[in-house]
This record gives sequence, C-alpha cells and structure tokens, in this order.
Amino acid sequence: MAFHKIINDPVYGFITIDDVLISEIIAHPYYQRLRRIHQMAMAHLVYPGAVHSRLHHSLGAYHLMRCALQELTSKAVEITKEEEQAAKIAILLHDIGHGPYSHALEHVLAENMHHEEISLLLIKELNEQFGGQLQMALDIFTGKYKKKFLHQLVSGQLDVDRMDYLTRDSFFTGVNEGVIAYDRILKMLTVHHGELMVEEKGIYSIEKFLVARRLMYWQVYLHKTVLSAEQMLQRIIKRARLVKAQCQQPLNSFIHEPLQNITLQQFCSIDDVDVMMAIKSWCNADDKVLSLLCKGLVDRRLLKVQYTAEAVSPEIVAAKQNETAKHLGITEEDAGWLVFTGEAVSSTYNFEDEHINILFKDGEVKGISEVDNALISENLRGKIKKHYFCYIRI
Amino acid sequence: MAFHKIINDPVYGFITIDDVLISEIIAHPYYQRLRRIHQMAMAHLVYPGAVHSRLHHSLGAYHLMRCALQELTSKAVEITKEEEQAAKIAILLHDIGHGPYSHALEHVLAENMHHEEISLLLIKELNEQFGGQLQMALDIFTGKYKKKFLHQLVSGQLDVDRMDYLTRDSFFTGVNEGVIAYDRILKMLTVHHGELMVEEKGIYSIEKFLVARRLMYWQVYLHKTVLSAEQMLQRIIKRARLVKAQCQQPLNSFIHEPLQNITLQQFCSIDDVDVMMAIKSWCNADDKVLSLLCKGLVDRRLLKVQYTAEAVSPEIVAAKQNETAKHLGITEEDAGWLVFTGEAVSSTYNFEDEHINILFKDGEVKGISEVDNALISENLRGKIKKHYFCYIRI
Amino acid sequence: MAFHKIINDPVYGFITIDDVLISEIIAHPYYQRLRRIHQMAMAHLVYPGAVHSRLHHSLGAYHLMRCALQELTSKAVEITKEEEQAAKIAILLHDIGHGPYSHALEHVLAENMHHEEISLLLIKELNEQFGGQLQMALDIFTGKYKKKFLHQLVSGQLDVDRMDYLTRDSFFTGVNEGVIAYDRILKMLTVHHGELMVEEKGIYSIEKFLVARRLMYWQVYLHKTVLSAEQMLQRIIKRARLVKAQCQQPLNSFIHEPLQNITLQQFCSIDDVDVMMAIKSWCNADDKVLSLLCKGLVDRRLLKVQYTAEAVSPEIVAAKQNETAKHLGITEEDAGWLVFTGEAVSSTYNFEDEHINILFKDGEVKGISEVDNALISENLRGKIKKHYFCYIRI
Amino acid sequence: MAFHKIINDPVYGFITIDDVLISEIIAHPYYQRLRRIHQMAMAHLVYPGAVHSRLHHSLGAYHLMRCALQELTSKAVEITKEEEQAAKIAILLHDIGHGPYSHALEHVLAENMHHEEISLLLIKELNEQFGGQLQMALDIFTGKYKKKFLHQLVSGQLDVDRMDYLTRDSFFTGVNEGVIAYDRILKMLTVHHGELMVEEKGIYSIEKFLVARRLMYWQVYLHKTVLSAEQMLQRIIKRARLVKAQCQQPLNSFIHEPLQNITLQQFCSIDDVDVMMAIKSWCNADDKVLSLLCKGLVDRRLLKVQYTAEAVSPEIVAAKQNETAKHLGITEEDAGWLVFTGEAVSSTYNFEDEHINILFKDGEVKGISEVDNALISENLRGKIKKHYFCYIRI
Repeated sequence: MAFHKIINDPVYGFITIDDVLISEIIAHPYYQRLRRIHQMAMAHLVYPGAVHSRLHHSLGAYHLMRCALQELTSKAVEITKEEEQAAKIAILLHDIGHGPYSHALEHVLAENMHHEEISLLLIKELNEQFGGQLQMALDIFTGKYKKKFLHQLVSGQLDVDRMDYLTRDSFFTGVNEGVIAYDRILKMLTVHHGELMVEEKGIYSIEKFLVARRLMYWQVYLHKTVLSAEQMLQRIIKRARLVKAQCQQPLNSFIHEPLQNITLQQFCSIDDVDVMMAIKSWCNADDKVLSLLCKGLVDRRLLKVQYTAEAVSPEIVAAKQNETAKHLGITEEDAGWLVFTGEAVSSTYNFEDEHINILFKDGEVKGISEVDNALISENLRGKIKKHYFCYIRI
Repeated sequence: MAFHKIINDPVYGFITIDDVLISEIIAHPYYQRLRRIHQMAMAHLVYPGAVHSRLHHSLGAYHLMRCALQELTSKAVEITKEEEQAAKIAILLHDIGHGPYSHALEHVLAENMHHEEISLLLIKELNEQFGGQLQMALDIFTGKYKKKFLHQLVSGQLDVDRMDYLTRDSFFTGVNEGVIAYDRILKMLTVHHGELMVEEKGIYSIEKFLVARRLMYWQVYLHKTVLSAEQMLQRIIKRARLVKAQCQQPLNSFIHEPLQNITLQQFCSIDDVDVMMAIKSWCNADDKVLSLLCKGLVDRRLLKVQYTAEAVSPEIVAAKQNETAKHLGITEEDAGWLVFTGEAVSSTYNFEDEHINILFKDGEVKGISEVDNALISENLRGKIKKHYFCYIRI
Repeated sequence: MAFHKIINDPVYGFITIDDVLISEIIAHPYYQRLRRIHQMAMAHLVYPGAVHSRLHHSLGAYHLMRCALQELTSKAVEITKEEEQAAKIAILLHDIGHGPYSHALEHVLAENMHHEEISLLLIKELNEQFGGQLQMALDIFTGKYKKKFLHQLVSGQLDVDRMDYLTRDSFFTGVNEGVIAYDRILKMLTVHHGELMVEEKGIYSIEKFLVARRLMYWQVYLHKTVLSAEQMLQRIIKRARLVKAQCQQPLNSFIHEPLQNITLQQFCSIDDVDVMMAIKSWCNADDKVLSLLCKGLVDRRLLKVQYTAEAVSPEIVAAKQNETAKHLGITEEDAGWLVFTGEAVSSTYNFEDEHINILFKDGEVKGISEVDNALISENLRGKIKKHYFCYIRI
Repeated sequence: MAFHKIINDPVYGFITIDDVLISEIIAHPYYQRLRRIHQMAMAHLVYPGAVHSRLHHSLGAYHLMRCALQELTSKAVEITKEEEQAAKIAILLHDIGHGPYSHALEHVLAENMHHEEISLLLIKELNEQFGGQLQMALDIFTGKYKKKFLHQLVSGQLDVDRMDYLTRDSFFTGVNEGVIAYDRILKMLTVHHGELMVEEKGIYSIEKFLVARRLMYWQVYLHKTVLSAEQMLQRIIKRARLVKAQCQQPLNSFIHEPLQNITLQQFCSIDDVDVMMAIKSWCNADDKVLSLLCKGLVDRRLLKVQYTAEAVSPEIVAAKQNETAKHLGITEEDAGWLVFTGEAVSSTYNFEDEHINILFKDGEVKGISEVDNALISENLRGKIKKHYFCYIRI
C-alpha cells in the first residue's frame, strides 16, 4: 500500500503526507526545531491562543500548496510528479531559516541577516544530506525554475505562505475578521502564459483578502501591546550585548561573538527556549535596564505604547526620559532604552512590487488595481505608517 | 420558575425567549406565516443552502437585539425593562409586512406598497389584539420614541437587521467571505448623546462590515443567475395580470383586483406557497410567454444574463427580440418579455443617508468616512450600478 | 479546458461537478424537483433552520462519494473512471423517488410504495432518456455490480447517504451534538476482499458516529413536536381521502384514485408545494377534523405529545376522546383522529442487519460490536421504542 | 464607566473581564507564569496545534463559570455578587499549582505532591497578598462553602474545568470528535436542594459528553505517541536525578534536593522553559541513557509503543532489554530505562465517585446511569486499562 500519513490540523482538518521524501524532511531535526519557534513571537501576550509554532505554519502552507497544485492540475495546467514534489518541499522549507522568535528578533540576533538567506543555506545543506533530491525545490525557491508560477506559489502577492499565515494567525488569535476565503481563492487560481493569475469571478475574494490583511496588520501584528513586547524583546538582546550579560551556550556566542564564528548547526540548535531561558535568568541581572526589561516581559508588565498621527516631539520624549532617569536612578542615556519613539509600517498591497493579475473571461489580463470599481485602487495602495511613543510606567 | 424557552439556531447556537408576551407574538399566525416566505427569494437556485425563512431571520435579529441591549446595559446605558421588551418586539416584527418572496415581488404583487408600510399596519393591528401592549414597540419602530438609539438598532446603518441578514445569508449560502464580525461589532457599540455609535477600536470591524456587504451584494444578491430568476418571477406575475391567467384564491384577487379590495387578513393568508403553486399550474398556460417563464423557473432553465459596463445598444436588443420572436412564433412585443435590459444597483454605504459614527477615546465623534486612512472614504461611497442584458436561450 | 463547476455549500465549502453527464442529470427536471421537497419534512417547526431540501442532501452525498472514492484510490483500491462516474450517479439519484415531505408521507400518498422502488423506476427511466449511460449506476444501486463496496457506499451501515444526512441535518438544525466526523471516517475507509471496512484506528470515530445517530433520533427525528406535526400531516391526507376533500391536480388523483392510474411523470410533478397548498385550502374545509388539523399545522398549533415508558391505558385514551368529542361537537370516532397513541422506534445499529467491519492491522476483521471494550456492544444494539400519547389541546 | 476588558479567544469568541480584583489576579506573576506551561504537555508532538497554555485553559474555565452562573441566575437560583466573584476566582486559580508540563511531571518533579495541594497553598498566599479578599473563593475551592453547587461547578463530574479542557483540547488538537456541547450543557444546568443537576432534556447531551471524554482519552490523552513522549519526559528527570546531571537553578534544586528546601516562590519561578532548556543541554550528557532520551525528545525520535490487551511476558521484555544493552553497549539495568512495560488507564465515569444527577420534570432525581435506556449504564462505567510495551528502536 502507498505511503500515507495524516496529521490533525484544527485549521484545515487533516494534512496528508503521501511522499516518503517529504516525510523524511519533516522528521529531520532542522525541521523539528521549528516546533520550538513561535509563529507570532509575543502576540500571545495579547491573544492567548496565538501560541502556534512555525512548524505548524509550514505544514499548513504545504497543505495549501497541495490543494493549489491539485486545483491547477484539474484545470489542465501541466505539472509533473517531480514538480509537484519539489514545490511542496520548497514551501515546507521556506521558513527553515527562521531563528528564535522569528521576525521579532530577525536582524537582531543574526545582525543584517535575512531569514530567507539562512533558509537558502539550510535547503542547500539538506539537499546535500538527501543526495541532491532537493535540487528542483531549490530552483523553485530561488525563482530559477522555468515554470514561474511555481515560485509565485511559494513567494508572491498571492502565495500559499501568506494564505496560510493569515488564515492560521486569525484562527489562533480568534480575530475572525482576519479570516480569508483561502479555499475560494485556491479555486480561482489559474495559470496564463506561465504566470499565476486569478479568474475574473475571484475579484471580490481578492479584495476581501487584501482588506483582511490590512485589518490583521493593524489589529494584530501591529497591535500596540504586541509592538511593546517585541520592542522589549529586541532591546533585551541588544542591551545584553552592550552590557555583556552572559547566558548558556550556544546562544551566548550569538549575542557576543561575530556572526562568522557561528556554524549552521549551531544556528539550528537555538530556538525560543534558549532566548526565554536567558531572559528568565537576566531578571536578576546587575544591569538595571536589562533586569527591568526582562522582568517586565516575563511578568507581562509591558512598556506603555501610544500611537499618534504625528511624531511625538523630541522635547516630550526628553522630558519623559529625564523623569524616568530620576525615578529609577539611572542615566538619561539608559532611560532612552525604556522611553523611545518609532514608526510602525504596514503595506497592504504594494504597487511597485508584484501584481495580482486578474484573468478576464475574454482573455484580457488586468492588475487588481486597474479593475473597474475596484475597492483597492485608491485605498489599499501604498504603505501606511503610524508613529508610536513607548515608555515605562513609573 | 421564570418563563424560559430556547430555540436551536445554527448561526448563533441558541436563541432565548424569556418573556411571555414575546412568546405569544411569535406564536401568532401572522408571525408564523413568515415560515413560508423565503428570506432570499430565488437565491437558492444558485446557493442551494439559501432556503432559510424570514421567520428565522427575524428571530436572529431579535437575538442580536437582545445581545446589543445587554452590552449597552453593561456599559451603563440606561434601558428600562419596558424599553428592552419594546425594542425586542419592534425588531421581531420589523419584517412582518413582507409578502410572498419578499423583496423580489415587493411593488409587484401589492403595487407601490413598501413592506414597511404593511409592517406598520400589522404592528398596529397586533397592538390592538394584544390590548395596547405593543405601543412602545410601535413608537420605536416609527422613530417617535425619545431614545433615538433604540430606533437606530432597529433601522439604521448599523442595525441588528443588517447584522443578522448579512450573517445569516452568508451562513446559509456558504459564502463565508460575507461573514461579518457581528459579535465584535456588538461589543463595540455605545451610546453618546442618545445616539448609537461605535467605539474607536471598532473601526476596522466596521470597514470589514462594509466590505462584506459590498461583496454580498455583487456575489450573492445581484448574482446574475439570481437576478435572472427574480426577473422571471416578477415577469410571471405581471404577465399573468396582463393575460388574465387565473389561480387559486386569495392570490387571484391580489393579481387581478385593485389593492384596496384586499384586507390585511387576506394579505396574511398568502405566502411563497401560493405563488409557487400558481406558477406550477401556469406551466401549461395557453399564453406561450407565461408558460415559458413558468416552466423555466420550475425546471431551473433560466434566462441568460450578461453584465456589461455600458448599456447594450437598442439595436442589439431589437435584433435579439426579433430572432426570438421568429424562433418561438410570438410577436416582437411578446419577445420583449423574454429579451430585455436593465440596471442592477448596489449602494454599500450612502453618505447622504445616515452616518456610522465613531466615538474616539477623547470624546470626539467622526463619521466613518472622515477617519484617517479610512478604507471606505473613497471607494465604498455612493452607489455602483451595472447594466445587464437578459434573454432566453434559443 | 476541462468541464468544471463549483457549488457553494455551507456544510462542505464547495461541491465540485466535473463531469458533463452528471451536470446534465442535475439539470434534469426530475432532479430539480427535489428542490421543492424538504429533507426533514416538518422538523423546521422545532428547528427553524432545518428547511434544507432533498436536492441539497443528494448533492452533499455525491460530494462525500467523490471524497470516499478519492481516498480509496489513494489507498490503491482499483476504481475505474467508469465506476467512479457510475457510483457518483447512483448516490446522486438514490433519493430521486421521494415524494412530497419524503419519509413523513411515504406509504401515505403512494400507499405501500417504498421510495426506493420509485427511485429505481426513475433511474431506469433516466437511463433510457440518457441512452443507456446510467446502466452501471443502476447496477451499483441495485447491488448487482461486482464490486460490492460501491453498493455499500451507496447503501449500507456506513454509506455516504447517512454520513451526509447526519452531518447536514445536525448542521441545519443547529444540534451540534449530532455532528459526526465524516472527514475522519472517510479517511479511515478501506476495502478488504471487496468489502467496505474501517481501519482499526477508526473505531472511536465509528462509536461516535453511532452515538451521534442515536442522539439525532431522539433529539431531532423523533422529537415529540416533530412527531406531532408529522402525525398531523399524515392524518390530513388520510382524512382528506376519507371525506373526499378535493384539491388541485395532479395531487387530487394521488389522494383519491388507485395508484396504478398515476404515471411516473405525474409523480414527478408534485412536491411539498402541492401538499401545503392543499392544506392551506382545507383550513376552511367543511369537515371539522380536517379543518382543525390543517389550521393547526399552518398556524403551528400542534397536537400535544407525551412520551411514556408504558403504553397509556385504553381507558385514559377513551376518556380523553370522549371529552374531546363533547368539547368539539364531533363523534367519538372522529375524536380518534385527534386523540390517539402509538410507538416511536429508533434502531441505531442493527445486529441482524448489516455489519460495520473493522480491519485490524494484523489483517483480522471484526464487527464493531465484537471489539474489546466496545461502547456499542451492549447498548446501541437493537431497537429502542417509546410509547406516545397524542391529543388536541382543548 | 464600569471596568470592562475583553480577550479574544478562538474557542469562545470573547472572554469578558469586568471585575477589578479578577483583573489584578490575572495580572499577578503567579498567574502569568501559567503562560509558560503547556496545557497538554507533549501532545503537540502528535497534534501540532495543541500548544495552548494552562493560562488559556484557566481563562476559558473562568468564562464557562461566568456563563453557568448567568444561566443559573436566570433560573432564579440565588447567587450573590460576592459569591459570583468568589466562584470565578476559585476556577481561575484552580490550576495555579501546576508545575512544568503539569500532569506529565506531576509527582516526578515535586515527589508525592498533588497539584491541587500546591494550588491551595498558592491561593492562600494570594489571599494574604490581596488582604483577605480571596477567602470565599478559598472556601468554595476547598468545598467548605455552604452552597455546595458552587464547589461542584469548580470540581465535580460536570465542572467547568472539564467542560473547558475537553472543548479546548479538542479544538486545538483538531480532533473535532471530542467536541462537547458545552453551551447546551450549560443551558441544562440547574440547582435542586443545593446540588448541581442536569435537566431531563439534557440526558443525551450528557451521554455525548461522556462518550466524547472516552474518545479524547484513547485518541488523544493516551495516544501511544503521546504516552511515549511523556514517559521519556518523566524518565529524563528521574535519570538526571539518579546520575546527578546538573542544570540551571532553581530547577537544579528541585531535581536534586529534598522538597522541603524549596520555597513557594521558587516553585513559581520554574516552568516548561526551564525543563526544556535542561533537556536541550543534556543532549550531550555523559550518561548515555540520559543523552539518548533527551536527544530523542528534542528531535522527536520517540520510543516505540505497542498497546496490547494482555501484558507482554517478562521473557519478551528481558530479551528486548538484553538485545538493546548489547546494541548500545550499556548494562541491562540501564536498558530497562529504554525498554519497559506499563498500564494506561482511563476512567470515564466513576460510579463510586461522584454522580451526575438528572432532575426530571416530575421532581424525581436519578443518577445518569439509572436512566432508562441509558447508553452509559453498562459501558462507560468503571476504568478501562490497556497494557503497553515501550522500547527504543535499534
């Protein structure tokens, strides 16, 4: 009998694994490590259900890829067995390069290193371990493979990555308004001249998808309490680096040594557990700023955040820093770690970036923003940013 | 023990009736009649699940009113026991004046008569039957009652009527994209200077509500197949009137006699069953146009509909009518019953109409369209119309 | 491009039709007629959401057949394209022979005629109309086809018919407790020596399925108010027959003429609409018993029902009949139409009947009732009956 | 305006906190610690969604308590404002005494110490910190409070604890079959002579609840892979204790020092993070058994488990241990840590324990097992046990 395994998923019901190679990749320690990385970093401090892992998200994206390929095949798009397997592997591994707390600590732990670069290194490494069987997946991942729509399914304006994370994050946070009609969008996908498109009757579903994304950004990803917790997390690592606070290996090397000293295998041995353990141990650090941030994060006594249309004036910030410094008996410079401003940015649909193309029944192709009466043409366009002011409650 | 009845509802779980008067109103034959009126007329020909009744919708709106009043009370808005009962009765009866196939045959069966006028007549009639106990409900329904927000909950841009029909219709059609976060919107309602408002943090939910409405209009209510079926339904009644086709009483009087001959009680004795039975009997009518329309509707062989950005030219329409007349052996005038054009209109959020007001934390009140970065300011504004061309397949 | 149509279904999301023949069968007036037959007869008087049609159920069962065949194929069970199409057609048409209000009026309108016999006649008729293309479907339906598991999927202890009606009825009634894990059961199906079986790890799902069925019987199908309404419906037809009450054709012939006078085409022209219209017209019948029953059903003033462990004594029944006769000014014999007793029966899993077989990993096959620690071995066995006493409120 | 906070919950939609004291208890570090304890220990290795925290479960149980009290109040059961607050606090804190990986490490980390004893100590401690405001909650928790049903709602056969964990665990695992009709059960609760009861019409819901629990035990809680992972977890701690493997404080003291040396505050400073970090560091331990178990758990290379009706014979176990010892180059005694047998036990409904009482309409009270035709009388009775054989794959 054929290889056949099912995994229960509260979001999609069942996820089917029916390929031995894919099953072996899932069983690999590099992949299993994703169990110990939260998909939504600190969002669970606001949405207690949002504790799902990056492994779960990857499996979900894999499932949507499986559905998408099935749908396209039923519409007579040619996809070979090898391409099917490769596209599934590419999406399964698209996030393999995420480090602890993924986006929240990206560029902080491994400075100036984007997770997709690390994913690429790791997929190459796995390709060697699996005797070259991942080559086509690698080509799809990097966009070199001839059938462009396969890459677009992995990474594009309408990729299964986004479809899964919006669906899954709105499911686990309980923010039902973020729900997208992933099943309907999948049914509306098609390929035209080698590019991924959406059939005409899917226009409203795409609009809804973009609006849901906008809502998820402001209501969840950039929720001010989430922003506060993630700022604290970043500042903890940076402060520890500054004051040379020590923790267990190999995380200690990540924080205090140059990146080139770190091996891929060391990278794969750290996860959220190492970081949280370090934070717990620094609650009693000698450095007051570090211990305040750590205790605050552990006990959920977070910095206060205000969103404002205009940037808060430097005078107000300075005054608050001064007041905080006096109150806590620290320098004003150190108070700047606990009282600061910044900008939160959401781009829903980026015109300069890639297009979502609509294929009309008469064969015409239009970008979603050029469609008559389109909701998004005017408003979901560029980036929207809000200023924030963040400070410790004293 | 207190009076307490629960009704299972697939949409909300349970609907609780805990008031004897309300229970008696529900048991009244005028209300029970709503069981035999489809909430969505002919939409089930496209969405087979959409067979729910207007009684079910009224009960659902009643349930949301109950939740809304509970929420407002918990926010220290003063609502007396009498007002609570009256508001619930007002929403329970808001659709009591709907005739067979509700909107689809409104103004056709009872010419130039809006269902809300008939609702008013019926609530007055019930008020007499119940010894004046419905007087406050009547005042809320007509907007005369001093606490304006109670009327706004029954009929306004954010009333529980809309909240229920969008929720219920999207549930039964299976168009999940139409789902609105009714529970979140209810939690965001508040009253300010006697008017119903939405708290600041509810902005994205309101945007989502308006976008969902827009989607439901184009994807469901004005779906071209639904439009076709409802055009056929209207034309059947009008044609029967023209050719004096007879059916069972009292429907026959409705079709062929002046409206003033009809009593309220007669109005309450007809429903979808009478109309569908007449249509079934006219499948064999002598008049070819009538029998074609009736057989088409019964067997779901519907007129073909095309939506177009511009109106189809009179020449094309005339040519099609001519061709049809020849093919069917009928006059060109009669062919005009089977080949015709029109306009479908959806207004999502009407600026001239009523406002959805947002109450900001600092006490400021803004219309949803004036909010910074609002999605709807530009695009969900006025009405959107599409032209259609409808013709029999020959 | 391949033929491809999707239908929105609130229960399963989307139902895909990708076969021209199947699409034509669905479009046939005989099949479209099922839109006008309630799946659950009068249950909507208790569960207002339960207004779904028999067409919707057939489409749902077709969808589950599609999933089941896909699953079995993925487990290397051999199923040809022809067999796949035939099995889908067989399930699509399995209820085509239902008359108005299906089970509630079975044997009453067409006396002593089981709906499956009529289904068989109609499938034969359609087979002729479609030039013999339905022959294999016919063989699967009648159990003559060599691959026995295909018939078992259409009709057996674990057929997709039951899986759909339990799922759909619990969905539309809102009785979530009746929900079965149809998706899990489908994933657990397998074929062994040509027979449909359940894999070992599906045991608990099967138990849950049988318990859900038991619950649906007592809580929904045999709910005392539903029982009352359906008794009234049956008695209305029987009484009309007795007192020769007339209604529109062709229903009138069904009621008053011998069954052999009725053609298949006439059978296919009546549905719930005809019966409900007749009932509405008989509200003013001269016969008091008939008019009382009709007005009661139309206005939802139903007979009172009591379930009892023992049959109510003939003396009590006679006394009640006597009291009723006096009160209404009718004969005691007539009062027997409004005051009567009976038995309601539910058989959850019938041992003598067919088995649900479990295939163990070691190749052993056991009936579900023989499994160690099985929940159902003792308790879900035979039939359970309750006595009821039904009478008009005076 | 009144204090009013809402928390998004994917299971129930929204959880409302409208009491300042309760809000302060939730904000307390002892309570926040529950965020870092998995509700289902290692179950996420089989069900990737099952990563929800014990904090989330406590909040959910609090929500159900709120609903239950509201329901009972609407049925004229007298509950004062103080009792309402106290009952909510009692359930909120019922699990406060859980240590890392809760049940999976109970009695292992803190030997012979039941989590409810620690909960009691912590509630007493919090009562002091909050100036005695938790006294009534304490009395309800310990069962001393006069209104017995309040304790039964916290801890009994039908308490809101069970209702939440069954609902929540089945939600996050995606095992929909475990779903119970918590909303319906809540609506069926009543109080009779001071005791919590279920109304007669709730019988089938209770049966369904017990069957769902049975299913969840065998399919989820005692799933053989979950059992394997939790056995490994326990053996890791025990082995570390035996071979004196060191880890960070204060966990190190827990493992190697007598329990009386540990303060309550130290207990509250450890959670899943400390244990998982220790396990990660022991992957390279000198002791081969310890490092094998740790690496196995981290990389999800788990021991193999077989369930058997009869205990596996000592000879087979000894042979396997011998083979393992040779293969790994360890003593046979050490091999006993990797090859062993045991018993898994599930008791669904314990007759000797507490009863679920049904209140009949005529005032009679019966235990659920004495009801006519009850499903559970015979089969859901006592405990059911299965033998298992667990060994390392070599």
